[in-house]
Order: sequence, then C-alpha cells, then structure tokens
Amino acid sequence: MKEPMKARVYVSFKSTVLDPQGQTIHAALASLGHSSIAAVRQGKFFELTLTPGVDRAAATAEIEQIAQDVLANPVIEDYRVEIIED
Amino acid sequence: MKEPMKARVYVSFKSTVLDPQGQTIHAALASLGHSSIAAVRQGKFFELTLTPGVDRAAATAEIEQIAQDVLANPVIEDYRVEIIED
Repeated sequence: MKEPMKARVYVSFKSTVLDPQGQTIHAALASLGHSSIAAVRQGKFFELTLTPGVDRAAATAEIEQIAQDVLANPVIEDYRVEIIED
Repeated sequence: MKEPMKARVYVSFKSTVLDPQGQTIHAALASLGHSSIAAVRQGKFFELTLTPGVDRAAATAEIEQIAQDVLANPVIEDYRVEIIED
C-alpha cells in the first residue's frame, strides 16, 4: 500500500530576531570545549501526515495556509514548507 | 568570500513516544476545519554555524557528538545531522 503523503514545516526566528535559547546552547557548547561552533540558532518543525486521497496541489496550498496562520508567527518567524511523497 | 559551513541537527521524539504537543496542534487544526491532516508530530532543529577553516570530516564528527551528547536525549529522541556547505 502507498504510504500517506507527509509535509514538514520548519519554523525559525527571522535572522534579525534575537534567539536567546540558541545563544544559551552556544555558551554551553563553548564551556564543554566545542570551540569550532561559531553560532547556534534554534527552530522547530512540524511533521504533518495527510489523510489518504488528498492531492498534492490541494495539500500544498492547505499546508502553506496552516504554516502561515497557525504554526508560525510571520511577524518574527520565517517558515519553509516541504512536501514528502513516500 | 566563502560562506561559513553550517550544520543542522533535527531532533524529534521516537515514533513510539507520545507527542502531546503534536496531538494538541492536530486537535486545534481539526477544530479550524483542516480535516485533511491525519496526524501532527513536533520536533526541533538547531542550526550550527562552524568557525571558518574547520574541515568537513572533523566538523561532521563533532556535530554528531554534540547531537548525541547535548542536543538530543537518545533514550526518547531520534536525531538527524545535515551538513550544509554554502
């Protein structure tokens, strides 16, 4: 049987927005001796499994809308949508 | 000038581990009328910028170790490392 279609939405702060969590991880890595790391930024991602039978074009449009309206805050965050056809 | 090498580490719960945050997002999307989404799982990612002059093999080994020791909890989480050469 065909695997269901999946989509991933990656959300991260815009590069102009301060990322204190990333800075904390960077400081922790430096204190552990990982001196080859110059910067760390953290983000989140969402893996959405689509119901079977949804076509790719409709899914892409819907996921794009979900990313914009629900998953990301477009004022301070960027997002990227990736459709995975198994 | 050459862009610095970057790496991304993607961390998500193992598929056997319950993801209440993903379930909550799924319920919220359903209540908003997005009925074509069957499941949602959330994860996080880290974008690490490497200091210039680090070679790729050394960087890969170091990032792998950082992912295993610091960024992920291997008991309940899976991770995936991706090296981006700009």
